[in-house]
Amino acid sequence: MTERTVFHLTEKEMPDAWYNIQADLKTPMLPPLHPGTGNPITLEDMLPLFPKSLVEQEMSAERWVSIPGEVIDIYKLWRPSPLIRATALEKALDTPARIYFKYEGVSPTGSHKPNSDVPQAYYNKKEGVRRITTETGAGQWGSSLAFACQHFDIECLVYMVKVSYNQKPYRKNMMELFDARVVASPSDETDAGRKILAEHPDSPGSLGIAISEAIEQAVKDENTKYSLGSVLNFVVLHQTIIGLETEKQLALAGEKPDVMLASFGGGSNFGGFVLPFVKRKIDGESIRFVAVEPASCPTLTRGAFAYDFGDTIGMTPLMPMHTLGHDFVPSPIHAGGLRYHGAAPIISHLRNQNLIEAVAMKQTDCFASAVMFAKLQGIIPAPESTHAVHGAVKEALRCKEEGKSEVIVFNLSGHGHLDMSAYEAYLSGKLLDGEFSEAELQKNLANIKII
Amino acid sequence: MTERTVFHLTEKEMPDAWYNIQADLKTPMLPPLHPGTGNPITLEDMLPLFPKSLVEQEMSAERWVSIPGEVIDIYKLWRPSPLIRATALEKALDTPARIYFKYEGVSPTGSHKPNSDVPQAYYNKKEGVRRITTETGAGQWGSSLAFACQHFDIECLVYMVKVSYNQKPYRKNMMELFDARVVASPSDETDAGRKILAEHPDSPGSLGIAISEAIEQAVKDENTKYSLGSVLNFVVLHQTIIGLETEKQLALAGEKPDVMLASFGGGSNFGGFVLPFVKRKIDGESIRFVAVEPASCPTLTRGAFAYDFGDTIGMTPLMPMHTLGHDFVPSPIHAGGLRYHGAAPIISHLRNQNLIEAVAMKQTDCFASAVMFAKLQGIIPAPESTHAVHGAVKEALRCKEEGKSEVIVFNLSGHGHLDMSAYEAYLSGKLLDGEFSEAELQKNLANIKII
Repeated sequence: MTERTVFHLTEKEMPDAWYNIQADLKTPMLPPLHPGTGNPITLEDMLPLFPKSLVEQEMSAERWVSIPGEVIDIYKLWRPSPLIRATALEKALDTPARIYFKYEGVSPTGSHKPNSDVPQAYYNKKEGVRRITTETGAGQWGSSLAFACQHFDIECLVYMVKVSYNQKPYRKNMMELFDARVVASPSDETDAGRKILAEHPDSPGSLGIAISEAIEQAVKDENTKYSLGSVLNFVVLHQTIIGLETEKQLALAGEKPDVMLASFGGGSNFGGFVLPFVKRKIDGESIRFVAVEPASCPTLTRGAFAYDFGDTIGMTPLMPMHTLGHDFVPSPIHAGGLRYHGAAPIISHLRNQNLIEAVAMKQTDCFASAVMFAKLQGIIPAPESTHAVHGAVKEALRCKEEGKSEVIVFNLSGHGHLDMSAYEAYLSGKLLDGEFSEAELQKNLANIKII
Repeated sequence: MTERTVFHLTEKEMPDAWYNIQADLKTPMLPPLHPGTGNPITLEDMLPLFPKSLVEQEMSAERWVSIPGEVIDIYKLWRPSPLIRATALEKALDTPARIYFKYEGVSPTGSHKPNSDVPQAYYNKKEGVRRITTETGAGQWGSSLAFACQHFDIECLVYMVKVSYNQKPYRKNMMELFDARVVASPSDETDAGRKILAEHPDSPGSLGIAISEAIEQAVKDENTKYSLGSVLNFVVLHQTIIGLETEKQLALAGEKPDVMLASFGGGSNFGGFVLPFVKRKIDGESIRFVAVEPASCPTLTRGAFAYDFGDTIGMTPLMPMHTLGHDFVPSPIHAGGLRYHGAAPIISHLRNQNLIEAVAMKQTDCFASAVMFAKLQGIIPAPESTHAVHGAVKEALRCKEEGKSEVIVFNLSGHGHLDMSAYEAYLSGKLLDGEFSEAELQKNLANIKII
């Protein structure tokens, strides 16, 4: 093994603009709707929740959005992140495929999340916001927002999904280290939380519920705004720095990708990774993009394309997206960041256009591949990221069967150092796959507007 | 902040030999002694514990020792590690100093430890060893040995200091992920452990005790060898890859170091970091080297230079080293990797030659600097590494007072992702500094041979 396996970019080579795929879509996306009027949402409708510059980004059709210098300065603490060839994995699988992964676990909080937290905190600060509320599943998003907020001297209040709050105490410690206040959701601090607790006192919580709580706090207080870690256009926009760096690094490696994979929850790490390459597919290149989602929360593979709420209580605009219904409470799998009922509208749109594929994987299978990966490559994947690893392993085994030396590139969105209890559960045979009920799905979908 | 702050080397630029300072010492070290005969230890004396190639390295006076290709292949999973300029920290401290840190937390287990675990496992495998036993404090060494052993298909048995076993369950999970068996020490699996438990049933354990247990298992079984994570010449030798890379990276940055700091426990991360630069000092260059040790285990600053055992029971050769006495059981501070009664003989020797300095710092002060560092630079230091951070902060503040723009370089030996409970204790005001008793010290020293 003498050839190069790690591809670093210098700080100067870091992209200085995010890529907005809206500019290159042949068919435009459907607009989000105001739940009261049924009309397309306006910029003004979103201002109670988000600063104006982010709402403008949400609605922008400009191909490139400049990254502010203050954001670049913070990105440089960990970016550009490395692209690594997984030669040990290739050898162990005895595959003719060449496997690369982009590694986002080098960030301050160990995942891709700060790529959007930092600009969100920056734009809020610029518009005088004093406090930001948010939800977090596994804690990746919340800890990253905490990190970003303390950099810009903004208060941070995080509603953490209760099952994760209990499973992952170290994530809470990290948020507190970065000065955030962390509350288990559903909580009794909000009307939304109290409503859920009244109906389901033992609710493990969900991202949808935690979003309702965080939004309620923002709506109640004019000095507080809300921050979302996925789904929205501007979040996926910020994450495109992953794919833009990957493009340059694959060029350094002299490779053209055949198939690109990422774990799929709301869509930010998948979208950020693949969108710059989807542009090439729109232009005629042959590349496959595979979103790997949990079998217990199969939004893209089994959800309906519908106008649905982003949260559980129904406080957000109606979003055109693949959804399991906003009432859906996923099984308490360890990949807390993937426990979301909906899919980013932009990713849903690309799925409808057959530009991307999706597959659903069982948690135990994902952990089996992740343990193999950790032993061979020396990086322990986050529970969410195990899905991308397993997806890549399956593609590599397909290449072996078909005798094809394809180039497989996946996004390893984070490390699992704060999720070792999930590995303990797996190794001791106690990890469950979680359940998914078709009857429950149909019940949830009955109340929403299928498109 | 537009200048370069991260200095990566390519894989090709990684050093292909370790540096052995024995070749450049003006005054030779005293030899270790056989406790029975009082004569200098021979190669044969050490063979029950270590494979021959490592014993030869222990006694070698060759300046350069080639790194085997198989070891380089595994090193490449994370090496060369980055050198980073801490510009945010400089700005916050308002110091004219320029602060750089070498970051070893990028390794599979999050510290510098695999630099020696991988070659130790390799040489054992080459000589047919089937099982390796070891001790571990915070778990950094044990998890790294587990990682290395599974790569070479060797069984791994780790005695983990009981206080850390209870404080750091995630470390245990990580060792088990890498197929090791982990036992809390003192245990009832060995004569050494049973002896301690009989006298002190509530013993929190110590590295010295855990070493006794691991050695006993190796001595009892011919297919089992022992592995040590610090102190010995060959361990420090393997760690010199840190300093050798740092030399090349400082050259890239166009800098000449004025002061270099590292946390000090047994001496492997400190030694590995500074030895290639100590050579320059021997040759006349002006550089300061500062070992930062915990105030509750002040081996270099308050210990005696004596012939003492490396373990608590007295199974090792007598080592010429700064020691608090082999009976010393340090306070249960979170920096478990620094809870060792002795100092590597090579570092003790350099201290006697006035080639290096040592300072002792309180745990709470170290955590205060580490929290500041984490917020500014986006990396959460391991409890052990907080000592290096705090030492560097104090040097930077001295430079500010004196108006000197010195170049301060420290080794950030690991991340604290698996030690978040220590940060929780610090943030909630529950972190103790640990105690150190002069009377206890004098009692311990009464039984050993002061040189």
